[in-house]
Amino acid sequence: MGGLLADEQLASLAVVLVATRNPLNIGAAARAMSNFGFQRLRVVNPYQIAFREARSAVGGAVVLAAAEEYASVAEAVADCQLVVGTTAGARRQPEHALVSVQLGTRRIRQELARGRVALLFGSEKRGLSNEDLSHCHWLMHIPTRAANLSLNLGQAVGICLYELARDSRVPVKPRIIESASADDLERMTKLLLQALRWSGYLKPPATVEAEEKLRRLVYRLRLSTPDAAVWLGMLRKLSRKLRDGQPPGDE
Amino acid sequence: MGGLLADEQLASLAVVLVATRNPLNIGAAARAMSNFGFQRLRVVNPYQIAFREARSAVGGAVVLAAAEEYASVAEAVADCQLVVGTTAGARRQPEHALVSVQLGTRRIRQELARGRVALLFGSEKRGLSNEDLSHCHWLMHIPTRAANLSLNLGQAVGICLYELARDSRVPVKPRIIESASADDLERMTKLLLQALRWSGYLKPPATVEAEEKLRRLVYRLRLSTPDAAVWLGMLRKLSRKLRDGQPPGDE
Repeated sequence: MGGLLADEQLASLAVVLVATRNPLNIGAAARAMSNFGFQRLRVVNPYQIAFREARSAVGGAVVLAAAEEYASVAEAVADCQLVVGTTAGARRQPEHALVSVQLGTRRIRQELARGRVALLFGSEKRGLSNEDLSHCHWLMHIPTRAANLSLNLGQAVGICLYELARDSRVPVKPRIIESASADDLERMTKLLLQALRWSGYLKPPATVEAEEKLRRLVYRLRLSTPDAAVWLGMLRKLSRKLRDGQPPGDE
Repeated sequence: MGGLLADEQLASLAVVLVATRNPLNIGAAARAMSNFGFQRLRVVNPYQIAFREARSAVGGAVVLAAAEEYASVAEAVADCQLVVGTTAGARRQPEHALVSVQLGTRRIRQELARGRVALLFGSEKRGLSNEDLSHCHWLMHIPTRAANLSLNLGQAVGICLYELARDSRVPVKPRIIESASADDLERMTKLLLQALRWSGYLKPPATVEAEEKLRRLVYRLRLSTPDAAVWLGMLRKLSRKLRDGQPPGDE
């Protein structure tokens, strides 16, 4: 399934933070949820101080105010049809399927069309425990270069939700700005040619080659209509000023 | 060429943090760079305490140790052929092209195959200023649901680098002609500015807005290195001739 997620599908995803220590990370997760339209935040055994401090953080206030607190992962995911754990990859049990965030979010999107999904993030220091992982259907990781350096928790949540909200088949919007007409470009070429002669950059006799070279140079600018109008105005003024400075009788 | 970016391409991307206030965000940016294999971090006018504190943060230590500090955006992007600004979309000038992170990173990948790219992130509170934006060829944003809530800076960097490192299976067309460096474009802007003043097109007092508008106009030309050299030569000559025609004592 492609395309953007509908509101009810966004509401069917629960972001579950397990044993998070740093209030900034809870705040960052809530803010990323707001950014990408997700609402359901669940916290399992957060450090109480961290949770209280996060509630006073800017951004994601609505999400934080509605956050639900659970004593165990089992309770936090009880109403979900699919439970996905996130991991840096190091600690997982070999029997657990591990997929990339690109493939994983595609599967999650499919599941969100028909049911609830929990996406679990572990603590900053130790990630998800084996007990936590045992509640997961499969695991997801964000491919990184430095395999031994895990992502910051807030960034990991941000990237997963970004990828989930990302429409991979986004039609590329054509730019609305119109390209300059050949007529404009021709007038620019003539004005520039004149200015260059009066400045002494181009010496007489005038050659066809010089003019053609200049025209190609102007065409390569790929100007829009409004920009061409600005350049024409500037060149007209420069050219006129240079003409005024010419010795009498000179053209 | 599709697939993952090669090491030398990763090294050709400069992540430029402008006026960042929070050390945690500098640290998060450096960590995300390490995660996805990017090495070149540049900071412009960071709050000094923030920069010092970030250097002691865990994760991304190698990136932070090698971070380069600049006094201006112009200096930080001088050696880059493509300069891309990131924005929540609110403050941009209408003539600046704004593309999604999916399309933008594809373009950046193509450019990294042949040159250097700077990716700019503004301060937490205000994003990139109009002056900062005038150094950008185009702007990129991460589509979010809540349009009025910008992403956390660390998460924005994380998502952009993730998307850049992500295998989108897009074939990268190698273009043979190198794009002009920001340094060349800056010199063109200054020469043009001077010529326009001497011609009377721009009247004193000199305004920052006029210079920014001109810089954006020049950046939109998308010049190649050889073409930039020709334009620089022409502008130098036009400018000199106009200066010679000034009344004595006028500069």
